[in-house]
Amino acid sequence: MKYIKKKLTIDRVTIQNIAKKFDTPAYCYSYNQLKKNIDNFKKSFKSFSPLICFAIKSNTNVNLIKEISKFGLGADVVSLGELMKALKAGIKPNKIVFSGVGKTSEEISFAINKKILLINAESKSEILEIERIAKKNKKSVDVGIRFNPNVDAKTLSQISTGKKENKFGIGEKDFLELTKYIKKSKNLNLKCLSVHIGSQILDVKPYENMLQALNKIIKKANYSFEYIDLGGGMGIDYKNDKKMLNLKNYSKNIKRFLKNHNSKIIFEPGRSIVGNIGTLISRVTYIKEGHNKNFIILDVAMNDLMRPALYNSKHRIMPATKIGKKVKKTYEFVGPICESTDKFLTINNFQKLFEKDLIVICDVGAYGMSLSSNYNVRPKPIEILIKNSKIKVINKRQKLTDIV
Amino acid sequence: MKYIKKKLTIDRVTIQNIAKKFDTPAYCYSYNQLKKNIDNFKKSFKSFSPLICFAIKSNTNVNLIKEISKFGLGADVVSLGELMKALKAGIKPNKIVFSGVGKTSEEISFAINKKILLINAESKSEILEIERIAKKNKKSVDVGIRFNPNVDAKTLSQISTGKKENKFGIGEKDFLELTKYIKKSKNLNLKCLSVHIGSQILDVKPYENMLQALNKIIKKANYSFEYIDLGGGMGIDYKNDKKMLNLKNYSKNIKRFLKNHNSKIIFEPGRSIVGNIGTLISRVTYIKEGHNKNFIILDVAMNDLMRPALYNSKHRIMPATKIGKKVKKTYEFVGPICESTDKFLTINNFQKLFEKDLIVICDVGAYGMSLSSNYNVRPKPIEILIKNSKIKVINKRQKLTDIV
Repeated sequence: MKYIKKKLTIDRVTIQNIAKKFDTPAYCYSYNQLKKNIDNFKKSFKSFSPLICFAIKSNTNVNLIKEISKFGLGADVVSLGELMKALKAGIKPNKIVFSGVGKTSEEISFAINKKILLINAESKSEILEIERIAKKNKKSVDVGIRFNPNVDAKTLSQISTGKKENKFGIGEKDFLELTKYIKKSKNLNLKCLSVHIGSQILDVKPYENMLQALNKIIKKANYSFEYIDLGGGMGIDYKNDKKMLNLKNYSKNIKRFLKNHNSKIIFEPGRSIVGNIGTLISRVTYIKEGHNKNFIILDVAMNDLMRPALYNSKHRIMPATKIGKKVKKTYEFVGPICESTDKFLTINNFQKLFEKDLIVICDVGAYGMSLSSNYNVRPKPIEILIKNSKIKVINKRQKLTDIV
Repeated sequence: MKYIKKKLTIDRVTIQNIAKKFDTPAYCYSYNQLKKNIDNFKKSFKSFSPLICFAIKSNTNVNLIKEISKFGLGADVVSLGELMKALKAGIKPNKIVFSGVGKTSEEISFAINKKILLINAESKSEILEIERIAKKNKKSVDVGIRFNPNVDAKTLSQISTGKKENKFGIGEKDFLELTKYIKKSKNLNLKCLSVHIGSQILDVKPYENMLQALNKIIKKANYSFEYIDLGGGMGIDYKNDKKMLNLKNYSKNIKRFLKNHNSKIIFEPGRSIVGNIGTLISRVTYIKEGHNKNFIILDVAMNDLMRPALYNSKHRIMPATKIGKKVKKTYEFVGPICESTDKFLTINNFQKLFEKDLIVICDVGAYGMSLSSNYNVRPKPIEILIKNSKIKVINKRQKLTDIV
């Protein structure tokens, strides 16, 4: 995204042009940025060529997943629906990993039949259920165990997943017992040790602690895992202040770790692949003078983008057309929904805005559309991909008649 | 809801029976409880016979709204979609009030054409837009102005709406100016003063303050409003500790207020009409022994019921079958979604649970299904109404094929 002659553009297509053709609100993804992210991710870890499984939950648009699949990425799925989407997007089963604490019998059966790469189990009960279904179907199933390393990811409590008070993974004692159990099973092959400590991690230190914890547990288990699945969680630069996870630094740590382990690394990145490829285009419906701030009432709402209401996330906002004039008054960007949580950002020194102006909300490619809903009976936005300066609709705007 | 021979029932239908027939998760509403709530609401305020406009946003199921409509209630809508739903459910336009801070031109035009009772405007810009459209269509439109009384509802900050830092309503100075403006307009009729200070209010005191603020502003405006729309916000007994808003007490306050004002009262209740009529039936997928608690992993998730993740709301959980045995260990009820926010309740002294057991999450009739999403590509639950001990499907379970 950059301004060309004061007009904000995505790969030379102006926001104005998109809004004129497709109305607002509209999710808009940049193929160029997607390519950059994937190239950068691959390059950062090229010394050990990991299997990169895109975390479908971050963006479930099948057409976008198709593009991601063409770069050779696999998929990390957490439900039957996500597994079906990954397959529909052309991702081969041998590149699909199934994560999640509550896989149902139906989901496990489907995954076994499709012969996906790994089912990463999160509890003893789940292992027993996979074994039961494998036995019934006379199959031998490749599984992983998700280890809970009790590491603090130093991220938001809502998206921290690697501490012992979280529901995820299995603590040391149970992990070792379960390893022994699976080794003896005729219907389960223990292939993978998996771990995932949280989301939007900006510092490499928690990952270092995680690798140390893995070293210890592998030693104690005395087992050579074919795969080590390190999950995702790599943080991106939401604030535009260049603070993001140093992938190369993380890579060095993993390389060191691999000196003692002959395993293939799996990653499950979502946000770091698609987070900054997406913008949400919106039009100012009204400007309302408040007590000590002006409310910029947008046509986009919390149903379209839930992260600010759910995690108090701050997404940068940019005007579609740059004018020189700044305002002294504080601007509070809000949506039309009847809740105080339907609020995006409070900001000083923004440029002067007028009703009907276009703005974009930045970095909404991950957990944007995938968390959207029809709250207040609002239809879901259109999704657009800009590829080689061409506009491609990859998901039509929902019709009111479909939801009334 | 009560236990009959240790089986939890809704109007004599057992939870087991519903789950067996329709699978889980399932939203289940009690017609009896709905009737009780509406009767109680009407009775509490009968001395001044208000127009009760059900807040559609709390539950957007058309079949349920049809039942509510049969009791003579109107609708409070906040979007074109909600207005269409209200009309589809058979609510007459002259009982429909349109609220919300960001009504688009399309929404205003539709509302004017349908001749709804009132468009309650929330800003000067909106009033100008309504006037512009009315003029263009050579119409005269009945409007209200939402006043922001700067009253603290003493509820959650996320659902407080009546303070001056909130986006809602219009402060005193602007209110008085706008009143003058509308009085002179040829295309607008100023019919209503509206106000809404927040949600889940348990104490009558904030309402008393609100009425005092209304008294003052009406005096200053020197105008006789045909309608006074007091909004909703009446809190319900989520904790089951008998703490809920005393409607009769509130009623007395309003009666006193009406001695000085010859106006018809409008209410916009949502939660107090449908909150406690809904339960969400779920099955235990796995029980996982954690460090100092057991995780009860359910087949229902934050996509089905967002309130705990969004507002940290606590909804009571009850077993479908009562057994005597209590456990000493803490139970943490969580969903299968890969987020730490996907958590419903942490509780001590619950009865001993086993995998495949059924439980119900209580009081989910308001802002349950209406806030649901397809996050993690999970289909939305079925919705069922129990009326006269008969089970009626009022919204089918979403199919995976519809969302993949």
